[in-house]
Amino acid sequence: MTEIKPERLPSKENFIEWYNSLLQLAEIADRRYPVKGTFVWLPYGFKIMKKLVEIWDEIFEKNGIEQIYFPLFVPMEFAKMNEEWFEGFKTDAFYVEGENVILRPTGEPAMYPIFKYWIMEGKLPIRIYQTVSSFRNEGKTTHTMIRDREITFWHEIHTAHKTREEAKEEMEKHRKIYEYIWKEILNIPPICVEKPNYEIFPGADSAYEFYTILPNGRLLENGSVNNLGQAYAKKFDLFYIDENGKKEYVWQVCTGNGARFLVAVIALHGDERGLVLPPRIAPIKVVIVTIPKDNKNYLEEAEELKEKFENAGIDSFVDKSDKTPGEKFNIWDIKGVPIRVEIGEREVKEGFYTVYRRDTKERIRVQKDKIEEVIRSLLENDIPKFLYEKIMILYQQKIKFFDDIEDAKKWVEEGNVAKVNWCGKKECFESIKELGPSIEAIGFIVDEKKEGKCLICKEQTDKLTIFGKTY
Amino acid sequence: MTEIKPERLPSKENFIEWYNSLLQLAEIADRRYPVKGTFVWLPYGFKIMKKLVEIWDEIFEKNGIEQIYFPLFVPMEFAKMNEEWFEGFKTDAFYVEGENVILRPTGEPAMYPIFKYWIMEGKLPIRIYQTVSSFRNEGKTTHTMIRDREITFWHEIHTAHKTREEAKEEMEKHRKIYEYIWKEILNIPPICVEKPNYEIFPGADSAYEFYTILPNGRLLENGSVNNLGQAYAKKFDLFYIDENGKKEYVWQVCTGNGARFLVAVIALHGDERGLVLPPRIAPIKVVIVTIPKDNKNYLEEAEELKEKFENAGIDSFVDKSDKTPGEKFNIWDIKGVPIRVEIGEREVKEGFYTVYRRDTKERIRVQKDKIEEVIRSLLENDIPKFLYEKIMILYQQKIKFFDDIEDAKKWVEEGNVAKVNWCGKKECFESIKELGPSIEAIGFIVDEKKEGKCLICKEQTDKLTIFGKTY
Repeated sequence: MTEIKPERLPSKENFIEWYNSLLQLAEIADRRYPVKGTFVWLPYGFKIMKKLVEIWDEIFEKNGIEQIYFPLFVPMEFAKMNEEWFEGFKTDAFYVEGENVILRPTGEPAMYPIFKYWIMEGKLPIRIYQTVSSFRNEGKTTHTMIRDREITFWHEIHTAHKTREEAKEEMEKHRKIYEYIWKEILNIPPICVEKPNYEIFPGADSAYEFYTILPNGRLLENGSVNNLGQAYAKKFDLFYIDENGKKEYVWQVCTGNGARFLVAVIALHGDERGLVLPPRIAPIKVVIVTIPKDNKNYLEEAEELKEKFENAGIDSFVDKSDKTPGEKFNIWDIKGVPIRVEIGEREVKEGFYTVYRRDTKERIRVQKDKIEEVIRSLLENDIPKFLYEKIMILYQQKIKFFDDIEDAKKWVEEGNVAKVNWCGKKECFESIKELGPSIEAIGFIVDEKKEGKCLICKEQTDKLTIFGKTY
Repeated sequence: MTEIKPERLPSKENFIEWYNSLLQLAEIADRRYPVKGTFVWLPYGFKIMKKLVEIWDEIFEKNGIEQIYFPLFVPMEFAKMNEEWFEGFKTDAFYVEGENVILRPTGEPAMYPIFKYWIMEGKLPIRIYQTVSSFRNEGKTTHTMIRDREITFWHEIHTAHKTREEAKEEMEKHRKIYEYIWKEILNIPPICVEKPNYEIFPGADSAYEFYTILPNGRLLENGSVNNLGQAYAKKFDLFYIDENGKKEYVWQVCTGNGARFLVAVIALHGDERGLVLPPRIAPIKVVIVTIPKDNKNYLEEAEELKEKFENAGIDSFVDKSDKTPGEKFNIWDIKGVPIRVEIGEREVKEGFYTVYRRDTKERIRVQKDKIEEVIRSLLENDIPKFLYEKIMILYQQKIKFFDDIEDAKKWVEEGNVAKVNWCGKKECFESIKELGPSIEAIGFIVDEKKEGKCLICKEQTDKLTIFGKTY
């Protein structure tokens, strides 16, 4: 909405300052809305999120998970059915005056009493999701999209199954869906951990959590998959009668994440020039900028190229504004458009296009008749691969293995993440927490093991955890 | 979600009973959510609304109206900036305990103070919309989707312009957009009126409102287009400095409607068998049902046909459940799928398909090689045309012109709508209101004039209004 001035971004070293400026300059969020922990989604930011929402809608539909919508008001009698849930949220909930309701902090207490009707009507398994705002009355410092009081674009999957095995399978399915989103859509290597059982909901079976590492070294929780076991079923009396006439509680899985996907994209792919969007979620994949000279503006050539892209199904945009080419380059760099095509005198005379990659900042010459092919290959292969590998390298620099507690602590305090052997015992978990403010071990790394001694108790183990400061 | 039993719908004569049963049987809404004036959108209902939302997103984007998202919390200082707005909503607002905010009843007070920043930054015109829930603490009887306390899928367009002329043009644009949605997407003849000036927001220029007539004769407000003039601009101090250095307030337009579109579809197209969906918003356009005989189930033929439809871009579904064909017919009739194709012994032997139209309830034989062509023509032409004309006939029966007040009153009390000459004066408007509870004149009919005498004061006029009971 707002006119972008070709301002400089603060250095990415000052992450939060850089991040907040970028949200405004790239027209993602207007942070001036005066209710703490809320903000306005601007059209460009909205479009990016909508791309992502369309993708998850499609993935969920393909997996047979149906979209529904539950009201935002959760009746107090529902909220209190699970006293542990309520204990966890009661100080964080927003209460509506004169009404016996809270605004939904999470979906369980709204949905599960209605699940009861559906199960009684013979409907199992239940596999549904909704994309909606959630509300938390955060006392802590809020950060746009990282810690909001209105958490926007939150998707929550909730399922119910007849058997433990079915729920276990469901959980693995969702881990794979998240991995797919991280790798293929966002081009970010996923960090997935399994939470130790004292960190999950009482009575639940297990939980996976995905994390990303922000440039300031902070670990950001970025999606969770919870195998709830029968913990909620017992609270909400969700049961069916099996073939032997026996009452059996259902087994449940839930997952959730939202705009934090975009936080990871901004923070990890973004650079000193602005956003760098993974092609799959870029609203504009190619921007065409002409370099006018001697009263020739080359707009005809630009329109011709745009039409070519349209026919090839590539979302492109011709910047016809009266800004200088330099200003335009700057704006589209800030907005992270994956590819820019430049058309000027040389291009027209010599019959080629200049193609600029936002990710590598390289310019290449492409013959006119090869343009769709080259662009498609860049969007589908080269750019995603480059982005992914860049984060891999960053993670290799940010995450180091330690077997000495003091070295590990020092490393974390310098804004990094430590990988250590860890037995998994609660005492050892607590000891890591005591290393400093906001420091936390985040759980067993899935898909990586290494023989060694627990950093704290020195017991032999092959399990690993990473720890660092969290948001 | 819930299993549909082949239950009978109550007679449509008892409209609200029929309507509420249909919401549940067609799996549109689960009305058992225990917060007054709220309900759960079931997967099938959600899919229908999503189709409609995708259509309006596309229309708005094509018209250059950008999608944004404002928080649900409206700060009290914003809410009170326009004291007339606040007066209108203060008893109907939901207040959040301990926070100086209300839940958004409408978008103006959330958006316009932020418009101020954008205008100061040189951004005019502003043309944005959002699709979101709105909240009204309705004291009156609530009716699902007709009068809710959480109004879901509400879209609101808000614009700001430099000149009165630009705002006027904008308003006409939106009237045409609404007309297009009514006619082409929902296949319902629009009833558009211009509100008399004492019925619009103080200081506003003018307002169009769209209405539908429910089968019980009630008039339902169904979308509005408001030319706000400078009324809000003055309250929210939205101005720019013109070329002469003069401070000039902006001119604004806003529009809004939501799930009431679906109410109109259900109420007007639906019949004694259930929903009848206009093809454009039907999530499944063709359902394929096989009629098994002697251990032959014809599923192969069904899949083959589904593939044909897929290649032709026609959303189809093969019902492979183990229900009887009769039960399946019943379910898909309730769900309003526009076309059913039946494949059984005769069809396979004789090389044709039986095609059933949900709208006319006719069955026709279609040669196999003509099937895509016939289906496409039914979906794009015949069915929309039939639906539209059916409502035209209904409206002709429901709306009668009167020049006698007693006759008109009697007609309205029998569950109809009266069309009358009306001078437009406030006294005459009030007199119509006094004819009985819920009776209201709704404004000047756009696009229809007739010479005659005002029903009340007998003054000569060519203006017409319709009046009846409203929701």
